[in-house]
Amino acid sequence: MIIAVIGGDPGPRHALIQAEVAGREIARTGHILICGGRGGVMEAACEGASEAGGLTIGVLPDSDRSQMNPYVQIPIVSGIGRARNLTITLTADAIIAIDGGYGTLSEIGYALAHAKPVAGLGTWRIESDSLDADPIFRTDDPVVAVAWAIEAGGRNPD
Amino acid sequence: MIIAVIGGDPGPRHALIQAEVAGREIARTGHILICGGRGGVMEAACEGASEAGGLTIGVLPDSDRSQMNPYVQIPIVSGIGRARNLTITLTADAIIAIDGGYGTLSEIGYALAHAKPVAGLGTWRIESDSLDADPIFRTDDPVVAVAWAIEAGGRNPD
Amino acid sequence: MIIAVIGGDPGPRHALIQAEVAGREIARTGHILICGGRGGVMEAACEGASEAGGLTIGVLPDSDRSQMNPYVQIPIVSGIGRARNLTITLTADAIIAIDGGYGTLSEIGYALAHAKPVAGLGTWRIESDSLDADPIFRTDDPVVAVAWAIEAGGRNPD
Amino acid sequence: MIIAVIGGDPGPRHALIQAEVAGREIARTGHILICGGRGGVMEAACEGASEAGGLTIGVLPDSDRSQMNPYVQIPIVSGIGRARNLTITLTADAIIAIDGGYGTLSEIGYALAHAKPVAGLGTWRIESDSLDADPIFRTDDPVVAVAWAIEAGGRNPD
Repeated sequence: MIIAVIGGDPGPRHALIQAEVAGREIARTGHILICGGRGGVMEAACEGASEAGGLTIGVLPDSDRSQMNPYVQIPIVSGIGRARNLTITLTADAIIAIDGGYGTLSEIGYALAHAKPVAGLGTWRIESDSLDADPIFRTDDPVVAVAWAIEAGGRNPD
Repeated sequence: MIIAVIGGDPGPRHALIQAEVAGREIARTGHILICGGRGGVMEAACEGASEAGGLTIGVLPDSDRSQMNPYVQIPIVSGIGRARNLTITLTADAIIAIDGGYGTLSEIGYALAHAKPVAGLGTWRIESDSLDADPIFRTDDPVVAVAWAIEAGGRNPD
Repeated sequence: MIIAVIGGDPGPRHALIQAEVAGREIARTGHILICGGRGGVMEAACEGASEAGGLTIGVLPDSDRSQMNPYVQIPIVSGIGRARNLTITLTADAIIAIDGGYGTLSEIGYALAHAKPVAGLGTWRIESDSLDADPIFRTDDPVVAVAWAIEAGGRNPD
Repeated sequence: MIIAVIGGDPGPRHALIQAEVAGREIARTGHILICGGRGGVMEAACEGASEAGGLTIGVLPDSDRSQMNPYVQIPIVSGIGRARNLTITLTADAIIAIDGGYGTLSEIGYALAHAKPVAGLGTWRIESDSLDADPIFRTDDPVVAVAWAIEAGGRNPD
């Protein structure tokens, strides 16, 4: 299974720790990490996964690898800027959003538009008149988030 | 100025009326409407703008014009699927979000990531720990939304 | 009808003259010009079309308008880099390629992949084992190229 | 190193054999294969690489994995249609083009625009007035093509 960790660059200290633990747990459970390949939350998640011996994919917005974090093992050099947010969410079986700014919000929108399971750690809270319940699974524990993502991603038909 | 109207397809009746009024007002004030070129809120906005003699641009996700609404005057056939949400928000000087689902949420994320002014009519409410105030100008009146968008879009340096 | 002029930035002097004449002729015959919105052949075509009172669309690779040529009337700020070459060719009913480098070659590939008519002035010559005849209409006269593009674009079912 | 094999779907029998040998050789020499993830030449290359124990990446144009060939190990679900041709060429350190139609031509254009080394087996021949020499390394031997790609890709600064 491919699990995305999305979040800001830079990110606050507690988010970086959560991301590193999430990355490690994704690797430890035998899954592949995908992210945006840059710094902050993305780098912390890649570092955690790499140190646990897992595979990391970074879908870069750029046209080369110059902005890639050093823990990306498979760089996908998209060349399409922030439109690569779509590619990250479509590729993932489940998404873990940690903190994050407006770029992360666009990814949450894409993920939910394609019915991908989304776990959230201190990330965006979203509401609308047509929404009955929070579509995001909330937790503060990255290990719980990964366990939930694996289970929810496995139920996903795609 | 180019002003985007974003929202769902299909959309509830009150959203379609708001979108049509917003489109008409964009045209009446001499501005260009951009949208996603499909049905629902996008079509209602295009219809309003076209009937008021304005120019309408529809940035389609598809590879041809088959899903285009009949009020799009300038179809941009992007061929990049939902990644065209980025193109819509980058092209607009200001964005008016009316109702809308998760696709609209991704556009709000992109718009705010690029510091574009966003007016919202019954659309997503978003909150995060690092956000002090609502970044979206809220109103229920599409005429007020257009007036605000013109003013805010004109202040935008880009 | 929307007609694309594609070619390099910068371009050699004779290509710029051809592009300006092509742009003027597209406008004079009541059609819309689309191009990549930058300098060189793109700028010359936009200048010709604008001076003849026509409408010009520039699909920029960038995330803002800073690299736009001054004759683009409707900037489409794609934000997707060179992937916008797909959008230009899909949006056009017919394509006129003038001189051009490897970016232009990618656009010729996209255009022919989608069965768009392509006229070529001093542009890439392409051959393959499975190709019986040159798929590009060759001429040195931009007025002839525009007349052919209008006729061929009108036959196109899309 | 990441090496792309590009070519048509479907492809003629001799091209499929060349692609399978190229894929096998990429894997045997310890490199990663990237391709468009669909059938024909892409599938043959993935099959060859997979059977030799190598890693295969397929950058799909689609929004899901339904059109993926069974030998793709890491699917990148781009969601951006043929614009994914840019992503394939930017991600690769070197490109091997085998036969191929107009989509392949667009990829050759992108590859050369970014100064990526391109080896060609029975693929497009391209000429222009400003081109002094064939920018593509020509061979009929997929083993030679892979050896050349590894060497040329290693010289590439990116």
